[in-house]
Amino acid sequence: MSGNTFGESFRVTSFGESHGPAIGCVVDGCPPGLVLAESYIQGDLDRRKPGTSRHVTQRREPDTVEILSGVYEGRTTGAPIALLIRNQDQRSRDYAVIADTFRPGHADYSWWQKYGARDPRGGGRASARETAVRVAAGAIARKWLEEAYGVSVRGYLAQLGEIAIPFVSWEATMGNPFFAPDAAVVPRLETYMDELRHAGDSVGARVNVVASGVPVGWGEPVFDRLDADIAHAMMGINAVKGVEIGAGFAAVTQRGSEHGDELTPEGFLSNNAGGVLGGVSSGQDVTVSLALKPTSSIRIARRTIDKTGAATTVATEGRHDPCVGIRAVPVAEAMLALVLIDHALRHRAQCGDVHTSTPKIAARVK
Amino acid sequence: MSGNTFGESFRVTSFGESHGPAIGCVVDGCPPGLVLAESYIQGDLDRRKPGTSRHVTQRREPDTVEILSGVYEGRTTGAPIALLIRNQDQRSRDYAVIADTFRPGHADYSWWQKYGARDPRGGGRASARETAVRVAAGAIARKWLEEAYGVSVRGYLAQLGEIAIPFVSWEATMGNPFFAPDAAVVPRLETYMDELRHAGDSVGARVNVVASGVPVGWGEPVFDRLDADIAHAMMGINAVKGVEIGAGFAAVTQRGSEHGDELTPEGFLSNNAGGVLGGVSSGQDVTVSLALKPTSSIRIARRTIDKTGAATTVATEGRHDPCVGIRAVPVAEAMLALVLIDHALRHRAQCGDVHTSTPKIAARVK
Amino acid sequence: MSGNTFGESFRVTSFGESHGPAIGCVVDGCPPGLVLAESYIQGDLDRRKPGTSRHVTQRREPDTVEILSGVYEGRTTGAPIALLIRNQDQRSRDYAVIADTFRPGHADYSWWQKYGARDPRGGGRASARETAVRVAAGAIARKWLEEAYGVSVRGYLAQLGEIAIPFVSWEATMGNPFFAPDAAVVPRLETYMDELRHAGDSVGARVNVVASGVPVGWGEPVFDRLDADIAHAMMGINAVKGVEIGAGFAAVTQRGSEHGDELTPEGFLSNNAGGVLGGVSSGQDVTVSLALKPTSSIRIARRTIDKTGAATTVATEGRHDPCVGIRAVPVAEAMLALVLIDHALRHRAQCGDVHTSTPKIAARVK
Amino acid sequence: MSGNTFGESFRVTSFGESHGPAIGCVVDGCPPGLVLAESYIQGDLDRRKPGTSRHVTQRREPDTVEILSGVYEGRTTGAPIALLIRNQDQRSRDYAVIADTFRPGHADYSWWQKYGARDPRGGGRASARETAVRVAAGAIARKWLEEAYGVSVRGYLAQLGEIAIPFVSWEATMGNPFFAPDAAVVPRLETYMDELRHAGDSVGARVNVVASGVPVGWGEPVFDRLDADIAHAMMGINAVKGVEIGAGFAAVTQRGSEHGDELTPEGFLSNNAGGVLGGVSSGQDVTVSLALKPTSSIRIARRTIDKTGAATTVATEGRHDPCVGIRAVPVAEAMLALVLIDHALRHRAQCGDVHTSTPKIAARVK
Repeated sequence: MSGNTFGESFRVTSFGESHGPAIGCVVDGCPPGLVLAESYIQGDLDRRKPGTSRHVTQRREPDTVEILSGVYEGRTTGAPIALLIRNQDQRSRDYAVIADTFRPGHADYSWWQKYGARDPRGGGRASARETAVRVAAGAIARKWLEEAYGVSVRGYLAQLGEIAIPFVSWEATMGNPFFAPDAAVVPRLETYMDELRHAGDSVGARVNVVASGVPVGWGEPVFDRLDADIAHAMMGINAVKGVEIGAGFAAVTQRGSEHGDELTPEGFLSNNAGGVLGGVSSGQDVTVSLALKPTSSIRIARRTIDKTGAATTVATEGRHDPCVGIRAVPVAEAMLALVLIDHALRHRAQCGDVHTSTPKIAARVK
Repeated sequence: MSGNTFGESFRVTSFGESHGPAIGCVVDGCPPGLVLAESYIQGDLDRRKPGTSRHVTQRREPDTVEILSGVYEGRTTGAPIALLIRNQDQRSRDYAVIADTFRPGHADYSWWQKYGARDPRGGGRASARETAVRVAAGAIARKWLEEAYGVSVRGYLAQLGEIAIPFVSWEATMGNPFFAPDAAVVPRLETYMDELRHAGDSVGARVNVVASGVPVGWGEPVFDRLDADIAHAMMGINAVKGVEIGAGFAAVTQRGSEHGDELTPEGFLSNNAGGVLGGVSSGQDVTVSLALKPTSSIRIARRTIDKTGAATTVATEGRHDPCVGIRAVPVAEAMLALVLIDHALRHRAQCGDVHTSTPKIAARVK
Repeated sequence: MSGNTFGESFRVTSFGESHGPAIGCVVDGCPPGLVLAESYIQGDLDRRKPGTSRHVTQRREPDTVEILSGVYEGRTTGAPIALLIRNQDQRSRDYAVIADTFRPGHADYSWWQKYGARDPRGGGRASARETAVRVAAGAIARKWLEEAYGVSVRGYLAQLGEIAIPFVSWEATMGNPFFAPDAAVVPRLETYMDELRHAGDSVGARVNVVASGVPVGWGEPVFDRLDADIAHAMMGINAVKGVEIGAGFAAVTQRGSEHGDELTPEGFLSNNAGGVLGGVSSGQDVTVSLALKPTSSIRIARRTIDKTGAATTVATEGRHDPCVGIRAVPVAEAMLALVLIDHALRHRAQCGDVHTSTPKIAARVK
Repeated sequence: MSGNTFGESFRVTSFGESHGPAIGCVVDGCPPGLVLAESYIQGDLDRRKPGTSRHVTQRREPDTVEILSGVYEGRTTGAPIALLIRNQDQRSRDYAVIADTFRPGHADYSWWQKYGARDPRGGGRASARETAVRVAAGAIARKWLEEAYGVSVRGYLAQLGEIAIPFVSWEATMGNPFFAPDAAVVPRLETYMDELRHAGDSVGARVNVVASGVPVGWGEPVFDRLDADIAHAMMGINAVKGVEIGAGFAAVTQRGSEHGDELTPEGFLSNNAGGVLGGVSSGQDVTVSLALKPTSSIRIARRTIDKTGAATTVATEGRHDPCVGIRAVPVAEAMLALVLIDHALRHRAQCGDVHTSTPKIAARVK
């Protein structure tokens, strides 16, 4: 009801604040027998970790994860897996300003009115720091998806402010701190970010995520369509303002004779559907695109009110990402993996013994 | 788990196929004491009803709703409200073609592989006919929202294929079968649809929905953000491929100094957030935009496979909406209302006794 | 949240009042491909039907069930199955007395204070009539359990007031209107009931239910143990005041060396556990026993208050079961079947591919 | 789905094994503004703590709880509250015997067949150690219930093996390690336990729990009745085999004219209902009674099989409670508190603005 649990069959319950003792989660419903160690999860966490380049927040957090339960002799037991990440760099400073005023574009005002209580230190629970636990939980989901079904989930930065980034290769995304799929564009991104940081401002971004190898049949037809649950997952990431599946908003101007992906014995001829037909996976790549708004904590002073309702201004000096979209790439991957494993298990519950004689066609004709 | 229930506190469980005996739903969790009659729900159903103009499906369905339970002496009792709509015009025809082949862009292939069973008559459960029950349930939600909080939920057609439709007034949306907010554009829409129908093709659309009067404080911060649940609701409508909240994808190129909506004692100065900050309503209008793909059932023949996996072609002759986006307007309104009432009740559960001395500022400075 | 849905993977959403237009339910999550017809469900409904002997309520209801969705060409499709039972014999009479006073032992007072609204006709939603839909939904569960796993679920009346009824055979339960497993005791039960009816009073009962053939492995270890969910299901039946699994309250005085059921390669040597170890089925018979209180609607006048809070008395003249425990037998069977199918599917979701080399031992050494 | 989360509005997600690094839970949905400190929770944990007398397990665990999130400046914020208890005394010993055989009456066999994996150290997740986190979460629930509604939740040992313990006073329960409500019986209990321990055997017990001050109106009428959810909660405690509400199994032989609790302007005249009418609280004391089976880990050798299915015997030498019923008292209190707070919030969601002019009558005429 309070919405800190994600998923139905594979459930992640998240907790923790930016400057509290720790963040973490409980993963319930993981199939037993999966080989799992902290080092594996750590690999994914390191991709999202703050402080890895000058273009993201300078907070120094090792993000060391500890598995507290659910794993015995290196394998999952089927019991809940609790993951703990202690906060280290809760830099001592004066939060009085933030505590008494409301940043434009931030959760400050709405949460205060909702709860009448607020942990203002570093944004408290509203901090993007919370997304580390999603990456940790997502790492477990990704491992199982890959081993059980050969599914891979990968994302990249598709646009930074005005700069559209062409997709060149998945390898390219690993060689730069922007998750940019084109090495050639990186110098331009660096210059752009340096100017932005210098100006004390922030900017939005577009992130694309793709799941390959998803078998046909995952997703529930009406309310909990696979794409509906993906939309829920993505819009639930801090700063996301838009979600597209497949052709997305381009479908508005498409004709039916253009949009509908033709089927042949050799595979589909296009993928406007983004791998989801009638809410159920088709066997094609599941393709998702997100819009992320610019960070609301900026050094430029802006008009606002304080807790008494009086007019004032606010500028935020702390350590913030000038573009939250960059570090959102591993978070979006994690959320997509969480949706997929959840629907893999949900599908197995109801349809675990269904077989048809119709061949499963290839994702796409090459 | 099979996803035919929507909501947590205000729950709608949907059932029914296009050409079965009936469609309907059970609404559980409605607050007691609400004045409710079938005639009220019927008013909303009539807006979505097929056959109201030549631009939508010609199926003739009165969509007469019967309240089976949960209402006594004209008021809700707190017990589940079952709504029943008998199907009338299940025109007898040969479904053998559809039953054995898979329409491109349709649920046919993925559902068949998922269930190994399929009701092909009129699309079965995949038919947009299912959305009638969402409108019926949404009517109850809208009535309560309006009476308890003064919330109004309204939508319009913002784009039809290439034709963008400027917002002129809410009144304009009621005077034409397109839900177009500008009377002047209607003749152009009619010509466009006539040509499309003549060509046997279909087209996409954009629909906007706005909720006004939503108080500050609804929504749950992390996974079940108000905007995340809206995204889930909207992407769960047949044919939707993209969802935006507030600035949406335009946020990608915005600066933080531009995007963050400034607060003043007189109200907010802009609404890029779309009425949701940190997943919680801010008191501003909640603004949502959807992309709908073109209908996949078209008269133009397309390549596909049959149940044995052999290559073939398929063309669909039946009665279909050439643009599902048009009749999606009342459906999108209903889904937004369902999300809002659910979060109104969820908020009351945890925070029913919270009060702050901070004034609730106006939605927007005029 | 309002609790009219039962189950997680196999979900039943119930609706309807005793004297409204209809009662019914939506069953979501049924595996596809199950052969299903109304006649099958009707068979179970007829066992619970009122008016079958002079010892139960004399209301005349055919309880004819209609399948509205989810079945195509005689098989389930995986879509929700809506079941509808129209009410026929809503005998017109004056409910003014019941509407304004609160029967001792009845839901009248607590529901009125909860909702501030109440449908008093025949008890409204509090009527045992609601249990017909559980039997209808349970019939689907039983059929699947039997065909997929060979599970049978059977119940009997174990005690009527002071009269304990020894278990002789399952066959015996079918030859009398009491579901008594011993034909010899029936004349004594008839005399007892005649005297009770003559006195205008009612009495409690004990019902036993047994599920045989349940495979080892169903149930979730901590909160949602198989036995915990059975307890929830049984205590959720009207009038139930106590639930036992296996040895039940007799376990209070047992020693560990006596209670723990020994395992041998040929099977278990006893069944004090009632087929559930650590919340998970063991492969033994699942044995459950319930206590049902006497009907609260009796002809003997009793002290109470009216809606203004003033002292008064109330006697109930309508058509009521002098012992609700009798017709509770098929209801308890249905609820046990609903718990079992739900856990069968839940188990398959998480552990669908688990195999061990340890033999599954027999339910019990003969 | 895997059942490690309890509740709908006030949700507790439990994790941890007996001999893993830690146990703990996440409490989601706690109303904001509640004064909360670790010391408060510690008080309840100390009551359940092992090693407090020679009559319970001799494991030495300080059970020190750490609040990781959700509390700021001494008050709950509405964010999830994570509670962590590190395991200290995981005495190193050889688990080979337990790992390869299945104790009669224990989860060993059923869990192994379910998961194909098992953490055998100290019983792993099946250990009663898991109940410590329920007590910790329950402490938060109790505090809120008491402060918001004046509800108190208290339990006692009502029977130990053959020794029935009369209720003398709540004060008496605090002066002895048995939670016995009669000081006079304590010497007899001590002798009994000494003999039992000497024999290497164990015994069952009966525990009673009472909630006073519960307002009328909590609980949902059909499946999620207050008593049904209590039954689920209690049967979900390790070793519980039976649950009664109010008159419980005594209702089997009662007449309706005896069982139904009469109402007067001064209050109810009896409490056979146990404070729940039609699944909804009546304002009377909620009275619950549980049967706990004897501990299955005993020193007396018993017949069993090993992982290959071969016949063998097993005796358990470790540190175990000869009567788990004793330490179950605070656990049962905690579970009852968790059900009550959950229904308090659920009730507020749907019926937060209901008022009637009918006076709420007293729990009982003195």
